Amino acid sequence: MEKTEATTIEISESSRERKGKAPLLAAAVAHDRAASGYKRGVAIFDLILRISAATAALAATITMGTTEQTLPFFTQFFQFQASYDDLPTFTFFVIAMAIVTGYLVLSVPFSIVCIVRPVAAGPRLLLILCDTLTVTLATSAAGASAAIVYLAHNGNSDANWLAICQQFNDFCQRTSGAVVAAFVAAVLLIFLVVLSAVALKRR
Amino acid sequence: MEKTEATTIEISESSRERKGKAPLLAAAVAHDRAASGYKRGVAIFDLILRISAATAALAATITMGTTEQTLPFFTQFFQFQASYDDLPTFTFFVIAMAIVTGYLVLSVPFSIVCIVRPVAAGPRLLLILCDTLTVTLATSAAGASAAIVYLAHNGNSDANWLAICQQFNDFCQRTSGAVVAAFVAAVLLIFLVVLSAVALKRR
Repeated sequence: MEKTEATTIEISESSRERKGKAPLLAAAVAHDRAASGYKRGVAIFDLILRISAATAALAATITMGTTEQTLPFFTQFFQFQASYDDLPTFTFFVIAMAIVTGYLVLSVPFSIVCIVRPVAAGPRLLLILCDTLTVTLATSAAGASAAIVYLAHNGNSDANWLAICQQFNDFCQRTSGAVVAAFVAAVLLIFLVVLSAVALKRR
Repeated sequence: MEKTEATTIEISESSRERKGKAPLLAAAVAHDRAASGYKRGVAIFDLILRISAATAALAATITMGTTEQTLPFFTQFFQFQASYDDLPTFTFFVIAMAIVTGYLVLSVPFSIVCIVRPVAAGPRLLLILCDTLTVTLATSAAGASAAIVYLAHNGNSDANWLAICQQFNDFCQRTSGAVVAAFVAAVLLIFLVVLSAVALKRR
């Protein structure tokens, strides 16, 4: 800000033959153009990260949502079967990651607006606010499911909770994969927030 | 940005009797002062939120860290006892919330720098980056522990995990309280990120 002011003053003093108003505007336009090129690059990177995060979130949702396993043996009374909605945490995971995916897809137009009009701070501020909320949602879903997946793998002797992964091996594999995908989406979202903050700073 | 430019031009044209350089600087200084007053208010609010979040995180750490319960009866072979380190998730919770508390306390000087020099964007950008990472840590700890606390309260018949809160009632109460405090700290951290983003925008 101060640097720009100094530049405009120097220009208007060195070119006395001109009106003095045009160089001021010209310098401002030149500064805006330089900032706009930098910001356009950031906005394009933002769009790429956003689409990657949406893909990861979608993969996590679908992997968890379609997970079920039926064991090949059954007793007289019931058949052993595991699906994601047996555990409330996994249901929360599916709902939360579906919301994250939906938000990321819906935010793509705003990201494109930031590419077309790189200097506009409004859409960027909107994106950083919503991204912060979304990163929290994704992280809480991933963290909660990670705790349950750990329990399913290892069990807990103190609480007398047995590991269920010996029986439901395929089920455990798939839920672990979904949790990893959710963490990837969360890390990409953190980068999105950081990127938006850096873009907001360099005006 | 454009508005400031327009103001400075008008002033330098309306006061032809003066050198033309002074009003330009005066307008810039006036604009800086207005922005600085606004930013100082935001920075003070930031400091208050930060101390509240540190208190909540410290409360969560201490509550979880000091939780243990010994049941008043015992069998011939062992005594029933529950403490936070029986469950790896709760150990993660204590470590993560201790890191969050430490970061929040250490970030107070940077927040004070933002009050003293409100226009400086460097410390504010540093704070928003670290706050984003911290909010993720706090949320994942809170989410993971919430999943385990839910399981301790309700159990899960499909995985054959029994609720342990009938026996360890006091233990469950305290861990639930710690999780709630962690969520409060996470929400305050979200506000901190949003506040910093808004302050970065209004330059």
